Amino acid sequence: MTRYAPTARTTATRSPARVGYDREAVHRVLDEALVCHVGFVVDGEPVVLPQLHARVGDQLYLHGSTGARALRQAREAGLQVCVTVTLLDGLVLARSAFHHSVNFRSVVAYGLAVAVDDDEEKSRALAVLVDAVVPGRSTASRPPSRKELAATTVLRLDLEEVSLKVRSGPPIDDREDMELPYWAGVLPLLTSRGIPVPDPAALVPVEVPEHVTAWGRPGR
Amino acid sequence: MTRYAPTARTTATRSPARVGYDREAVHRVLDEALVCHVGFVVDGEPVVLPQLHARVGDQLYLHGSTGARALRQAREAGLQVCVTVTLLDGLVLARSAFHHSVNFRSVVAYGLAVAVDDDEEKSRALAVLVDAVVPGRSTASRPPSRKELAATTVLRLDLEEVSLKVRSGPPIDDREDMELPYWAGVLPLLTSRGIPVPDPAALVPVEVPEHVTAWGRPGR
Repeated sequence: MTRYAPTARTTATRSPARVGYDREAVHRVLDEALVCHVGFVVDGEPVVLPQLHARVGDQLYLHGSTGARALRQAREAGLQVCVTVTLLDGLVLARSAFHHSVNFRSVVAYGLAVAVDDDEEKSRALAVLVDAVVPGRSTASRPPSRKELAATTVLRLDLEEVSLKVRSGPPIDDREDMELPYWAGVLPLLTSRGIPVPDPAALVPVEVPEHVTAWGRPGR
Repeated sequence: MTRYAPTARTTATRSPARVGYDREAVHRVLDEALVCHVGFVVDGEPVVLPQLHARVGDQLYLHGSTGARALRQAREAGLQVCVTVTLLDGLVLARSAFHHSVNFRSVVAYGLAVAVDDDEEKSRALAVLVDAVVPGRSTASRPPSRKELAATTVLRLDLEEVSLKVRSGPPIDDREDMELPYWAGVLPLLTSRGIPVPDPAALVPVEVPEHVTAWGRPGR
């Protein structure tokens, strides 16, 4: 499979040229994003919470609090979710206020999230989640104990109903605005890291490891 | 009012010490964030889409596509939404995989979003939306025409049922892990800007204005 199959709700009604289903492009955006926003329904009303995510093939692991009721549902029948990831690439400044925009890449994935019960899968998922945030970190920290595993919630979503929306490039002004005396262009945005702050409670001196000093997002 | 009144769904069941309702603190997070994630329900299932937002007092204006059906609902009876904003401040690396975390500030706002119909309010909201992304920009671009206003959708949400969740500071490891030979600490994250890229289609030379060169997020 090189493309996710479009469905009614992953088909754009506006700006269809910006929407795609390419599997590798979707994966790149999911892998670059540090955080996702998970939406689900409680009592008929929407809830959106930030979570961490990690992808393994076409499975997305989610980690974060959802509240007790949504978690129970994920454990029992599964929880219908919409997982959305957004990378902001730049601010698009046009000559007209109307054509202002942002350059972004955004993935929306719908499906049934289920709680991972199997200890071995959960253990693997947690390592992948840690490495998704800081590559190489799972082997540079103490692995979870059985008790810690039991205290951790991981949800799994199969990537099937997925779309990618992208806006890139310069502003597009109306022809009659092109000679207005306003600067137009793109202000690129990037996520960068500051200087690592060692734990002030550290008892033993440990040099800052390469997986910290070399940290950056894939694809940037 | 200095605090939003907690409700059942804005009351934390886990980590209550991290959850607050201070109005000014909520406003600072909303004002610093460039993008929000808006959740709503279509056919009983969750949809989460990124949108731009701007706050005026206790009103939050939202701009972005929601799909035709949600928009119709926002125009008719109003659309129940959950608007979530997340600022990632740092990666928290503990000695144990289990205590890895992220430092973040996240606002969740529930309520009924309604479409702004009044041209004057919409016009003001659009100026505020443009200025929320690039302060000073609304007066440095051509204001929207009547036709452009009609083609633009803005939703308004009253901030009433709102909470703020914050995690900050160093990792908190178990005492028995403190002498493990792993580096622990925080890797701060920041959103920074690249070099402005002028529109390659520009017909008249315009110097990069100060609102672009001096761009930064409030509160950082």
